[in-house]
Amino acid sequence: MKFEYITGGGITTPSGFSAGVAEAGIKKAGRYDLALVASRVPAAAAGVFTTNRFSAAPVRVSAEHLKKGKAHGFVVNSGCANACTGEAGFSDARTMAAAAADVIGCQAREFLVASTGVIGIPLPMEKVLKGIKKAGENLSPSAGKLAAQAIMTTDTFPKEVAVGFELDGKKVTMGAMAKGSGMIHPNMATLLGFITTDAAITPQCLQKALTSANDGSFNMVSVDGDTSTNDSLIVLANGLAGNRTIDNENNGDFRTFVQALNVVCVELAKMIARDGEGATKLMEVQVVNAPSLEDARKAARSIAASNLVKAALFGEDANWGRIVCALGYSGAEFDPDLVDVCLGDLAVAKNGGGLMFDEGRALKILQEKTVVIKVDLKSGPAAATAWGCDLTYDYVKINGAYRT
Amino acid sequence: MKFEYITGGGITTPSGFSAGVAEAGIKKAGRYDLALVASRVPAAAAGVFTTNRFSAAPVRVSAEHLKKGKAHGFVVNSGCANACTGEAGFSDARTMAAAAADVIGCQAREFLVASTGVIGIPLPMEKVLKGIKKAGENLSPSAGKLAAQAIMTTDTFPKEVAVGFELDGKKVTMGAMAKGSGMIHPNMATLLGFITTDAAITPQCLQKALTSANDGSFNMVSVDGDTSTNDSLIVLANGLAGNRTIDNENNGDFRTFVQALNVVCVELAKMIARDGEGATKLMEVQVVNAPSLEDARKAARSIAASNLVKAALFGEDANWGRIVCALGYSGAEFDPDLVDVCLGDLAVAKNGGGLMFDEGRALKILQEKTVVIKVDLKSGPAAATAWGCDLTYDYVKINGAYRT
Repeated sequence: MKFEYITGGGITTPSGFSAGVAEAGIKKAGRYDLALVASRVPAAAAGVFTTNRFSAAPVRVSAEHLKKGKAHGFVVNSGCANACTGEAGFSDARTMAAAAADVIGCQAREFLVASTGVIGIPLPMEKVLKGIKKAGENLSPSAGKLAAQAIMTTDTFPKEVAVGFELDGKKVTMGAMAKGSGMIHPNMATLLGFITTDAAITPQCLQKALTSANDGSFNMVSVDGDTSTNDSLIVLANGLAGNRTIDNENNGDFRTFVQALNVVCVELAKMIARDGEGATKLMEVQVVNAPSLEDARKAARSIAASNLVKAALFGEDANWGRIVCALGYSGAEFDPDLVDVCLGDLAVAKNGGGLMFDEGRALKILQEKTVVIKVDLKSGPAAATAWGCDLTYDYVKINGAYRT
Repeated sequence: MKFEYITGGGITTPSGFSAGVAEAGIKKAGRYDLALVASRVPAAAAGVFTTNRFSAAPVRVSAEHLKKGKAHGFVVNSGCANACTGEAGFSDARTMAAAAADVIGCQAREFLVASTGVIGIPLPMEKVLKGIKKAGENLSPSAGKLAAQAIMTTDTFPKEVAVGFELDGKKVTMGAMAKGSGMIHPNMATLLGFITTDAAITPQCLQKALTSANDGSFNMVSVDGDTSTNDSLIVLANGLAGNRTIDNENNGDFRTFVQALNVVCVELAKMIARDGEGATKLMEVQVVNAPSLEDARKAARSIAASNLVKAALFGEDANWGRIVCALGYSGAEFDPDLVDVCLGDLAVAKNGGGLMFDEGRALKILQEKTVVIKVDLKSGPAAATAWGCDLTYDYVKINGAYRT
């Protein structure tokens, strides 16, 4: 295989990256809530951020710092989103970046910053600054998993992945971590995602690669249809693998790099869907033979985001009518009289109408931890996959009392 | 007041309308599941239908029959949506209209037809035809409430309203019934809505009036974000009130008629939101001072449709961050730094940032059966209101096992 998964790997697996964490006391006591990740050398950097008009202060600060396309690392806190916090929040986010840069010994604008948690509450800066100091003191190349834990909010497990591959005859590593859980919807799906690599690539090529990978992964995940104020996906590439710098999108190395990013982003996106708030199942919606990629994506996302499909999945009810209904209002182009639907490998609808099918077999498929819904539009050459989860009592419970 | 509510009024309150119902056995035994409503004389008729690409057979048949702008009545069944049923379903819908027309003694194409219930199952035509015959035998001008009951699926109460007003010095009556509950989302919000009036109006003016009223009422309701295959809103105006026929949108009578339609549609829309599947509360979102009507509507709908806002409402949690978050991804134009938010009359955010507020008072407001969320964008002259409900354990329960 071209890309080799590295067992137990994460954000600090690529050469030259280390992480430090702290119990800063922003979340309840006894839980890590601050992570600092740094590269030994300055790295090419790129980011994709929320399109929410109330983008949080850290999002705006990071986007500004990314203008140079270089960064030395990033600092993240959980427990407080620093969103809707006005000028003071903006100043807090800058201070956070500056304090982390100070620990590493670089300029403030070489550091990125991210926050996740409750909206509309100011960051407890004294705790945050102490936490940054503490995290800086325990920087280690083996603290990737702790960092993945420190950025969690209602996530039930840390999300990380790492792969090895070759570029220009050199061994290259890419690692990543993410946190998701609530407010997961295109665009974009993760509250926070971070990727590191020791590949050498220009900031311009890195940004293009990231945007492309994001569109087919995080933007194809839906948990509850809400797009957060803080969604951020950041990648750092420090070049320590020693490959010839990728500076052109028309060469094979660039394509390999994009594929690696895709593998990593899709893995994280699936973990995020599976760990949707209260979720008990992962739903994978595969739409094939759509007129265009955009149509395929619209169709797949609409099904994965439908509350009625999600509730039927929870109830293990083979209600394919809800699948075609969500397809019908997706805005995608297709001919309704040609649509086939399968649950796993069981055909339940053909040419837009229902089939007689074995309910027992359908139930068995729906009882699995991963349920694949296949929709064949028979209207063109394009395909797309989206991921979602079931809608459960626990989703309501978690979100009925998150703030209090 | 210009419009007088008629206590206990509904679809048969206007002159010349009668209804008949039957236990056809499409739903479980012992429940009405078929309703026939007819006007003594042919009526001007208009309709607004689902934009779902999988529009159900009855929707397509009714739209076709409405081309002449005249109808004698409509027949409705619950328990089976006759959607995704192919050519056979189309033929069944035509047969249903023809059978009902036969009972009344008019042409098949003067009758409209609607269905609601499970998707992808063929109509049990023998039962349906027997039911139509039965309903035709017991047509009565006092059976409006029974008709409103017969069209229910997971609704917990029948939805009807009637108002009296004056046109051209004549007393005019307008009555209506609707069923909603699941799959309630713009466009459009009700699965099925029916309006009757004894006003005299041309089909062209009636269609314009209906579209306008629909945009500010049913299209502003969200229960779960899914737009159904069967959404239909139909109005019949039989002219028996004897007013001068409204044939021009630029006169005062037309404006009065549109206002009456608005009153009726908004009442039904609010009942539908309040009776959203599993709902315990009605949410009314008032957006004011938006740059345009479209921006105001986008903003209000986005908040009313947010799963996170709906879950917070269920949990009686004054989480205004979720309100501004849903506003932020609504696509509406506004300046985030100017936004004020109130829960009822309690200000919780000002100029895009949080305020210190009395949590006890907030809780009291959130414990009411109707919760008003006011959002002032301070960015223009336009306003809009949307309605929704809370997201509850019961929503998940109802929709986890609807088909089985």
